[in-house]
Amino acid sequence: MTTEETAVPAGEPTIGRPGAYAKGMARRRQILDRAIEVFRERGADGTSLRRIAEAIGVSHAALRHYFDSLEQLLVAVYEHSETARHEDPDSLEPTSAVDVMVTSAVQNLEVPGLVQLYSTLVAASLESRSTEAREYFTRRFETVRTSLVERVREEQEAGDLRGDVDAARIAALLIAASDGLQIQWLLEPSIDLEGTLSEFHTLLRP
Amino acid sequence: MTTEETAVPAGEPTIGRPGAYAKGMARRRQILDRAIEVFRERGADGTSLRRIAEAIGVSHAALRHYFDSLEQLLVAVYEHSETARHEDPDSLEPTSAVDVMVTSAVQNLEVPGLVQLYSTLVAASLESRSTEAREYFTRRFETVRTSLVERVREEQEAGDLRGDVDAARIAALLIAASDGLQIQWLLEPSIDLEGTLSEFHTLLRP
Repeated sequence: MTTEETAVPAGEPTIGRPGAYAKGMARRRQILDRAIEVFRERGADGTSLRRIAEAIGVSHAALRHYFDSLEQLLVAVYEHSETARHEDPDSLEPTSAVDVMVTSAVQNLEVPGLVQLYSTLVAASLESRSTEAREYFTRRFETVRTSLVERVREEQEAGDLRGDVDAARIAALLIAASDGLQIQWLLEPSIDLEGTLSEFHTLLRP
Repeated sequence: MTTEETAVPAGEPTIGRPGAYAKGMARRRQILDRAIEVFRERGADGTSLRRIAEAIGVSHAALRHYFDSLEQLLVAVYEHSETARHEDPDSLEPTSAVDVMVTSAVQNLEVPGLVQLYSTLVAASLESRSTEAREYFTRRFETVRTSLVERVREEQEAGDLRGDVDAARIAALLIAASDGLQIQWLLEPSIDLEGTLSEFHTLLRP
């Protein structure tokens, strides 16, 4: 398998041919599936598009056909892994805002490489030269906060969650605590991530 | 001012001369003071030792004399800026564990470049090739947690903080929430960082 920079290899779909789009999407998805496995094992350590191409066994040119930059690939890997998780029939349907965060954080413990990738991409998103990561994470935080605020409000209205706190602030705090704790856990694995996040059950009890 | 890679320039102290160590430390501190100003304004965007040397107006060789790597310089800049803050006589003496985190986070709002630097270094510390950042942040999280746990316990014993939660877990949660919220705030400055973190006052009330 060559990693030389060449023209798009034979067999790689190009735009304009009938069915090329669907085939291209399928091929892109295959590449992402394999890239996720690589990140599960290794994280985002010292990666380049060339090294990722080698690791997943496609040519550098093929990878460049689907992803313009390393950042674009990393964002796609992260997004694809999150989508794959939500499609998993074994994933539990959490019942409360706290459970949503605890379940998601506990699932992440199984894939430290993706927690590290998340941290690398969030850091990249804060740099002004970043565009892909900044857009993705700004939108992602907004989406997660919005869905969590709604859940907190419903629980407050049902009397399952204390009413003397602001739903939007609690949603932002839950996400922040989960993100921050995963980093502490990566550096100090003796931290009880599930137990620590679960203290929110006590803190938010009516 | 040259940025060429040359021998240590005349005037830069070297080890072994009497008084060289003290002079070296003073010069190192001067460089860090200037580097902090650069990071306050620009963050850690696309930096290299060479670019930082240019920005602070010293030769690349002089900078390399004090810092082996970009990572070592960045950790030193972050550490130095934290020390400088704690030496500031105007910095308030916070009265509770929550206030410690709120005060510190609010101070960070004034220096977004350092929040970004923190995020970049934490991400670097999770990469296995990292040594400086990993050691620094593993130790730093441990130190901050230990001091915060003590404060939470004292407040619990004094009846100022609810007794039905675990002090160590609350300390880790407070740090995590503060770290995570600063990132959300950098991406979405309309977030009320102080108000959101202050919800912990309500959550932790006895």
